Amino acid sequence: MNEKQKTSKSETKSEKKSNNNVKSVKIIPLGGLEKIGMNITAFECDNSIIVVDCGISFPEDDMLGIDSVIPDVTYLKENIDKVKGFVITHGHEDHIGALPYILKEVNVPIYATRLTIGIIENKLKEHNMLQTTKRKAIKHGQSINLGCFRIEFIKTNHSIADSAAFAIFSPAGTIVHTGDFKIDFTPVYGEPIDLQRFGELGKKGVLALLSDSTNAVRPGYTMSERSVGKTFDQIFSENKKNRIIVATFASNVDRVQQIVNSADKYGRKVVVEGRSMKNIVATASELGYLDIPDNMLIDIEQLNNYPDDKIVVITTGSQGESMAALSRMSANIHRKISIKPSDTIIFSSTPVPGNEKAVSKVINELSMKGAQVIYQDTHVSGHACEEEIKLIYALTRPKYAIPVHGEYRHLKANAQIAETMGLERQNIFLLESGEVLELSKEEGKVVGKVPAGEIYVDGLGVGDVGNIVLRDRQQLSENGLIIIVVTLERGSNEVLSGPDIVSRGFVYVRESEDLMDEAKDVVRSTLDKCQRKNITDWSKMKNEIKDSLGNFLWRKTKRRPMILPIIMEVK
Amino acid sequence: MNEKQKTSKSETKSEKKSNNNVKSVKIIPLGGLEKIGMNITAFECDNSIIVVDCGISFPEDDMLGIDSVIPDVTYLKENIDKVKGFVITHGHEDHIGALPYILKEVNVPIYATRLTIGIIENKLKEHNMLQTTKRKAIKHGQSINLGCFRIEFIKTNHSIADSAAFAIFSPAGTIVHTGDFKIDFTPVYGEPIDLQRFGELGKKGVLALLSDSTNAVRPGYTMSERSVGKTFDQIFSENKKNRIIVATFASNVDRVQQIVNSADKYGRKVVVEGRSMKNIVATASELGYLDIPDNMLIDIEQLNNYPDDKIVVITTGSQGESMAALSRMSANIHRKISIKPSDTIIFSSTPVPGNEKAVSKVINELSMKGAQVIYQDTHVSGHACEEEIKLIYALTRPKYAIPVHGEYRHLKANAQIAETMGLERQNIFLLESGEVLELSKEEGKVVGKVPAGEIYVDGLGVGDVGNIVLRDRQQLSENGLIIIVVTLERGSNEVLSGPDIVSRGFVYVRESEDLMDEAKDVVRSTLDKCQRKNITDWSKMKNEIKDSLGNFLWRKTKRRPMILPIIMEVK
Repeated sequence: MNEKQKTSKSETKSEKKSNNNVKSVKIIPLGGLEKIGMNITAFECDNSIIVVDCGISFPEDDMLGIDSVIPDVTYLKENIDKVKGFVITHGHEDHIGALPYILKEVNVPIYATRLTIGIIENKLKEHNMLQTTKRKAIKHGQSINLGCFRIEFIKTNHSIADSAAFAIFSPAGTIVHTGDFKIDFTPVYGEPIDLQRFGELGKKGVLALLSDSTNAVRPGYTMSERSVGKTFDQIFSENKKNRIIVATFASNVDRVQQIVNSADKYGRKVVVEGRSMKNIVATASELGYLDIPDNMLIDIEQLNNYPDDKIVVITTGSQGESMAALSRMSANIHRKISIKPSDTIIFSSTPVPGNEKAVSKVINELSMKGAQVIYQDTHVSGHACEEEIKLIYALTRPKYAIPVHGEYRHLKANAQIAETMGLERQNIFLLESGEVLELSKEEGKVVGKVPAGEIYVDGLGVGDVGNIVLRDRQQLSENGLIIIVVTLERGSNEVLSGPDIVSRGFVYVRESEDLMDEAKDVVRSTLDKCQRKNITDWSKMKNEIKDSLGNFLWRKTKRRPMILPIIMEVK
Repeated sequence: MNEKQKTSKSETKSEKKSNNNVKSVKIIPLGGLEKIGMNITAFECDNSIIVVDCGISFPEDDMLGIDSVIPDVTYLKENIDKVKGFVITHGHEDHIGALPYILKEVNVPIYATRLTIGIIENKLKEHNMLQTTKRKAIKHGQSINLGCFRIEFIKTNHSIADSAAFAIFSPAGTIVHTGDFKIDFTPVYGEPIDLQRFGELGKKGVLALLSDSTNAVRPGYTMSERSVGKTFDQIFSENKKNRIIVATFASNVDRVQQIVNSADKYGRKVVVEGRSMKNIVATASELGYLDIPDNMLIDIEQLNNYPDDKIVVITTGSQGESMAALSRMSANIHRKISIKPSDTIIFSSTPVPGNEKAVSKVINELSMKGAQVIYQDTHVSGHACEEEIKLIYALTRPKYAIPVHGEYRHLKANAQIAETMGLERQNIFLLESGEVLELSKEEGKVVGKVPAGEIYVDGLGVGDVGNIVLRDRQQLSENGLIIIVVTLERGSNEVLSGPDIVSRGFVYVRESEDLMDEAKDVVRSTLDKCQRKNITDWSKMKNEIKDSLGNFLWRKTKRRPMILPIIMEVK
């Protein structure tokens, strides 16, 4: 195997060799294929491991106080000598967000297209890791050799520019990983997806296809990104007198380009607002993925120098994120922009599952300020629908299918599509996190399981908050807590001080003084009972207090606060 | 004014009289028109108040531990002598749910159609209030006189049977309140909405229209309930060998009827599962709103006596509610039903905003068990879309419009529809909770504000949990808490015991012993400092501990747990 990492444009040794050997390759999803986010999949053969993507996930509703969730990469750490690098399909958080955490433990080079590398570099800068991380920009059509693998970057379309699919040439055969993709025959920037190459690879023989399942339950085709531009033009032409504010995903550079195009057409200046939006516009402009006419961009400080009908604000906050710029405008706490009844505000996005209420809240608040809010027909998806997924199966004709990216029901829908496209049911795999799928030309089967799963990030802590802590937070959040403190004399267990009761998150104390007094009586008589029964073991005493007070409060309030008895001892 | 409450079928005195007097009527939304749920609107003239609906709302994400939210009815309590009764449009929770709470303070009679009264009676039974509550079933077409008002019940269609709109005849003119409605020309049970009567009222002159805004942003017409029946038939015919499980809203009796119809057609027995589903099926059958063939219903205990292809289970849980029957099946904790790969499960519902992720979770869990889950084209809305709302405006031609029921953006869309239908902008009112709108033939204006808003229900407590308690719960839920207890000698303030540290919901204590030891050191040195500086005031000492420990923990963890110093005193 050639361990040296080099780039090549031609198909040479490794592809041919892989066709002559009957060997196997292992595919190991480390981040959980069954949930959105945390996309990270290891491919292993002989003494080489490559890792496709390294995503972060956001906490579920019951993960109280957790900031984010990253994958457990114990397997990579244990096999660090084999790990040759990360190959990244595109620059979305659920594909790159965990890199700063994981690179601290698995410091291997990163390979991605130019814009993706640019976005990763912004992230590394924030974590002060730019110096310690090797990275290399790869062009579509180029290949890199990593251990026994050769990985070719293939042009795709998605809701972020410069996305790539991978052809992973291994000794066991060619594996195609689509990344997140759609088929856009008229993309805003660059070329359509390289369908010819998918066809060529299929003709030569594809062992396995890992394909995006997000929209597998939606029939038909996803609309072209360009269709949104037409909607923008129409809205601009119908709102010539109003200030226009457009909220969208910062990473959707093509969307930003189309807003810029409409601004240009209607003679408006553009203000870019929101930290991530400013970052991406700077990076994408610098790298040439965004073409903004000279003198069009103005600083937010200059906003008041222009009339409303000469302004477009492009902003973050399309998901109702409470601290994003648009949310701050809607809540009247934005430093520079106040919403006026003459504003036209476009949500160029759909809510990510779980954000529906937050988005509605912002829309309602903006509406209450009199602004016109437009949120219909102003967005298209970046993911392939049913017929597009079929097309990729038709071009690649894989022996095995491993649906990726999406909830379980989406993966299952993709599996059903694979079956209708002629794959045998036993050759379609819905993998759980950590499952090791071994594929060869003869057979595919799950041969084992490695550690995998979720690590919680809370503040600076990575992994120090687990289920016990979360369960406590859950109980505290629902019913608050009652603390009972009593100081006992050592030996005699006579009460020297207390019982004192402190409550938080339970009831208004001032309005519930009687309840608290009664609660103290309950504790006192429990302590008396313990004395009489000669119970001197503290944990037993605490349990008695918990039980008696818990029962009392449940009877009185039908609530179950956390009860924390604390016994202090003085001699 | 005739204070006696009687029913009459004909239009008589009060309607005529109202046309001869130039008087005013007040409309006061008490529950907040700006948010879904808590539908409760007072109508007042002279010495009479009537209240339309009395709904409950469910807690927002930041109302931790709150079970439900009910309206503040201070205004009704203060004017209890005027309040003549509740008139209820239909039996959904957001229109009747607060009755058991509010009736305790405002015990006046309830008027509603027969099924609605039946559903309310179930609720009163649970609260042991059946004896103390006056109630009367009214037929569509009938009227009741309540003080200076006459209220006529008008047949509508909605996702629950026996819904009504009201024509409220007042001395100032006729007000039409649609309740929640759709226009269904082919309803499953009973007649279509009485459009003729809306037209007749309009012809005679309608002062104001309060109309349902829920679907005002959706163009076109809502599909007939009957269209879902066709989908059921198709699914039943395509899944002849599978057990079929259908989840839907318990209150949607017509939906249940259509499942029963398909079961009948395909020779299946029906099991009803889930407490609220059993209740509603019993009530609706008893009152004749549901027609189930003899011997079709079987008890869940008999399930194993029948093959899968002879069974339909109708169940609660279509909203992913964690304790509902379907969720328990998906989580493998249902007592009687285990999901099998050969099951076909139909979600006959769409997620209520905020429930999207919970529903997805249940669908994914069911899919993982191998079941086929169908959730597309199996539901229609119960609310009027844009063209239906226009039709009601066209029939009634009101002078004033007060959009109701929906988020603010929906109310605003309804207001825009009203404007396109020719109403003057200043005659359209988007009211906030408690605003008093006074209408006469001459003018309409907001003349004041009464107390109104949200009261939190937590367990048995009504109103004893407010913003302070919720803020504590929020902090506890995000970062947990640290309790520091120290026992001091009275007078000398010498430390006799402690400082002891107890934490909950903060970090794994066992893995963070060093951190806790350091934290104790921080507290010790703070206590020393207080001694040296002669700080003896406990609240000052506590603040010093909070500050020094808070800073220490933020530096170490970037988290801000609640810090609770407790000082005990022993002489």
